[in-house]
Amino acid sequence: MAKRGSTDRGFTARLDLRNGAVEMGHGAGGRAMAQLIDELFQRHLDNPLLRQHNDQALFTPPPGRLVISTDGHVITPLFFPGGDIGSLAVHGTINDVAMAGARPLYLAAGFVLEEGFPLADLDRLVASMAAASRSAGVPIVTGDTKVVERGKGDGCFITTTGLGVVPDGVAISGDQARPGDAVLVSGSLGDHGVAILSQREGLGFATEIRSDSAALHDLVAAMVAAVPGIHCLRDPTRGGLATTLNELARQSGVGMRLREAAIPIQPAVAAACELLGLDPLYVANEGKLVAICAADDADILLAAMRAHPLGAQAARIGEVVADPHRFVQMETRFGGQRIVDWLAGEPLPRIC
Amino acid sequence: MAKRGSTDRGFTARLDLRNGAVEMGHGAGGRAMAQLIDELFQRHLDNPLLRQHNDQALFTPPPGRLVISTDGHVITPLFFPGGDIGSLAVHGTINDVAMAGARPLYLAAGFVLEEGFPLADLDRLVASMAAASRSAGVPIVTGDTKVVERGKGDGCFITTTGLGVVPDGVAISGDQARPGDAVLVSGSLGDHGVAILSQREGLGFATEIRSDSAALHDLVAAMVAAVPGIHCLRDPTRGGLATTLNELARQSGVGMRLREAAIPIQPAVAAACELLGLDPLYVANEGKLVAICAADDADILLAAMRAHPLGAQAARIGEVVADPHRFVQMETRFGGQRIVDWLAGEPLPRIC
Repeated sequence: MAKRGSTDRGFTARLDLRNGAVEMGHGAGGRAMAQLIDELFQRHLDNPLLRQHNDQALFTPPPGRLVISTDGHVITPLFFPGGDIGSLAVHGTINDVAMAGARPLYLAAGFVLEEGFPLADLDRLVASMAAASRSAGVPIVTGDTKVVERGKGDGCFITTTGLGVVPDGVAISGDQARPGDAVLVSGSLGDHGVAILSQREGLGFATEIRSDSAALHDLVAAMVAAVPGIHCLRDPTRGGLATTLNELARQSGVGMRLREAAIPIQPAVAAACELLGLDPLYVANEGKLVAICAADDADILLAAMRAHPLGAQAARIGEVVADPHRFVQMETRFGGQRIVDWLAGEPLPRIC
Repeated sequence: MAKRGSTDRGFTARLDLRNGAVEMGHGAGGRAMAQLIDELFQRHLDNPLLRQHNDQALFTPPPGRLVISTDGHVITPLFFPGGDIGSLAVHGTINDVAMAGARPLYLAAGFVLEEGFPLADLDRLVASMAAASRSAGVPIVTGDTKVVERGKGDGCFITTTGLGVVPDGVAISGDQARPGDAVLVSGSLGDHGVAILSQREGLGFATEIRSDSAALHDLVAAMVAAVPGIHCLRDPTRGGLATTLNELARQSGVGMRLREAAIPIQPAVAAACELLGLDPLYVANEGKLVAICAADDADILLAAMRAHPLGAQAARIGEVVADPHRFVQMETRFGGQRIVDWLAGEPLPRIC
């Protein structure tokens, strides 16, 4: 009798990408995993570094400082208006790298798949990753696949790690905001979170709200070219603009003062937030950034942002102030003041 | 009425690391997540790069070629004789980097936590990661935490990504095995998989079998110093020695011939495998490597391995042969021949 772990040497049929499902063997390191890699991952993601077929990718980096960033993606549903977990996992990590002012070079991707996950869905989302990666010019050069039993995961989780190179002279960091600086955003807020929540709760709004999921590195390159001395960049994902500004205020030891009327929010998103009882300032974005720069640079930076398709709706929304309490405050549309505090609780689970 | 996503500004008590549990809010990007990062992750893993507090870590790499590798860890149980998922996630990725002959520089870690996971367990395994990282001299410089609902994960998954620098003149790759080359292993096989399976199935063997989980980069550095021209290195994890040798045979377009009597296996592991119906050649290792080098270099390399604590039981177990079928064959203890094929199926799920 064959021992467990011994072999069958018979002919292996091709993966059934139409009706097949992920099996425990696809994560076992053996023949089934090699087949999944060859016929699905490698087929979509093919590039010279991935083709090295080793457990690591070898490359010679350009000269300069590098950044590394990692981000797990556990969004539900896996497919949504404007994207899916595959494109999101590419965009999200490219953006984390780009927020250092860096040019993204390479991505690595680790998958945790649930037994029974349809291979058709996996094929679709890996194709989407490949398209996002090609479109951004940032190849996925190494990866890993694990499988967990049915009921121990949720279809597909993807952790992507990105590497980028920082141009000389750029020193963007969350601790660089100074009183007097201008606070800019690249476009309308809340689109991603509202798109996910609408889909999840089966709400059919008259206007379909789409995720803003996008790779921002090209916008960042244009911004850095215009104003190499940008102080801070960050993408307001989980927790939204409010949380990101509080993070930056904490890191830099400053306060901020926003003008609500200047913050771009699509009318459909504002209406959906009203209906859902959400504050759009706390809702996640996946294709927007916050920039903080010296007041004297603000007009140049804003013009550079608006000249780029992903920054067409960019706006100057406030300023950095001296404040030992590090409060983010906002002048409301009605002329009042309110504190825009950290997100507390979890209004939107599994949003990215 | 406060909108969902708005805030409470009250005093936040410290994390309850004794009785607390992971909540959805710990992955939401807001105050609870900041607290988890400060009081748990940052406290254990503290280092200057992590202390940059940005969404990415900035560093200047040493000159030379770099490698990047990523590996998801979904092992169950999370704690086992000889390690836990924290130390394993550090060792596993250090080893994947080291198998290019590289010196590991930095790690990134992405966590997917299940709602309800005890903070005491998280604290214990992050402390273990920190200890493994410090002991290896490879800091964890950036990270990410996501939380999924109860029943949508399994306690804790960790995806680690590693970066390393390859010494000049080293060109180790799975496609470099040549007929006539020697095949070496660094020590006894099957310890990790048997340790996990014994624990999982509640088997109390007279001799406790411990995982061999260990960081191999220091052993690799000694090997590369002795024989810079090593052809292949790979750690035989999932699928064990058999699968790793088949991968290398496929990549290099060669066959291999092993001598069963030369393959080191601890008697307790051999006995446990017999009892469990496992073939130790297919059982995962987490602190062992396979090396392939020119026959003329084999004695020098073997001596260098044996001079290192993690290679004390190193052995020359066979040779590379010309074979268009790329078969791995083995001369058994009884003088017969058998094919050692790829792993088929999944005898040991969730092993790493």
